[in-house]
Amino acid sequence: MRGLLIVISGASGTGKGTICKKLLAESPGIAYSISATTRKPRPGEVDGREYYFLSVDEFKAWIAEGKFLEYAEVYGNFYGTPLNKIEERLKRGEDILLEIDVQGALNVKKKCPEGIYIFLLPPSLEELKRRIEGRGTENPESLTRRLQNAVAEIQIGLQYDYVVVNDTIDNAAAQIEAILTAERCKVARNADKFNFEGGF
Amino acid sequence: MRGLLIVISGASGTGKGTICKKLLAESPGIAYSISATTRKPRPGEVDGREYYFLSVDEFKAWIAEGKFLEYAEVYGNFYGTPLNKIEERLKRGEDILLEIDVQGALNVKKKCPEGIYIFLLPPSLEELKRRIEGRGTENPESLTRRLQNAVAEIQIGLQYDYVVVNDTIDNAAAQIEAILTAERCKVARNADKFNFEGGF
Repeated sequence: MRGLLIVISGASGTGKGTICKKLLAESPGIAYSISATTRKPRPGEVDGREYYFLSVDEFKAWIAEGKFLEYAEVYGNFYGTPLNKIEERLKRGEDILLEIDVQGALNVKKKCPEGIYIFLLPPSLEELKRRIEGRGTENPESLTRRLQNAVAEIQIGLQYDYVVVNDTIDNAAAQIEAILTAERCKVARNADKFNFEGGF
Repeated sequence: MRGLLIVISGASGTGKGTICKKLLAESPGIAYSISATTRKPRPGEVDGREYYFLSVDEFKAWIAEGKFLEYAEVYGNFYGTPLNKIEERLKRGEDILLEIDVQGALNVKKKCPEGIYIFLLPPSLEELKRRIEGRGTENPESLTRRLQNAVAEIQIGLQYDYVVVNDTIDNAAAQIEAILTAERCKVARNADKFNFEGGF
């Protein structure tokens, strides 16, 4: 069976990074697609693990070379998904997880309608605000901008296939795992199982 | 949330009855839709529990009164699904399980495209034959006819949404439960969750 292209995103602060790490830890068959970005590494982040950290000039060169499945500018930084390797892996039957921002996901959806688009929601706006503030890496101006963006981004979630409320990591991860199990049961992915022709 | 209309069918002998009983036992929120039939009750079957057992004349009267969501003739007997109550229950948010034969399911699919159509497959034709023989309620002629029908019916499964291989009851039931969890996460069923408008 061709691998699943799993696209998970959500408004800032909905916890998609944590959810995705849990999914990968529990599902050895799923491979992370690592994004490229021009934003500065946060404490603990390693180039080539969390992201490929590029300068703006490098990023623009990759764009020119057609290396991105999608790219977008978010809060003044570029983010993009290298296309090379993803198609190869899907053909080999590997499941690829894309953890990308809302704008990026919509670009991917146009190019890859076969993908499974999952949108994470916070349990409430209050909880979303608490999570963004709790991160402690935002100045007040950036915080306000992220919250305003989150409200707008949540409406974009209506264009996804599935929505999962991230009330607890365990609940959200279990729902996403159920979504993937269900997708693997789609008739369109299992035409080979209907080859029961012939006598007895 | 509006209830799910869950339609489970499969070729004869794929074990849909056993699977459906397990699903209902594990999911108190799902209500069985009881079919009407003109076939004779098997040992242990009770009118109004497994089926509404009708005479052919009674069944035809129900058809004339428009009481059926679908009906079909299978192996010389009529089977049908009373429409009354199902729509009411869905509106109340109850999940309704329809366990019906392949022909019946396709009729329902035309009228209720919102339903979730799950097709059960046996692990192999050999296993299917063994299961039908093991049932011990078939004469040789009926057995041959059921096996031939099964091969034809399996191709109809390509028109369903999901396919589940009934290798073990536990595996198959777990996959169906995942399908229902995933369906409850569909954005189209959760528009109310995106009402995050307003300030902070």
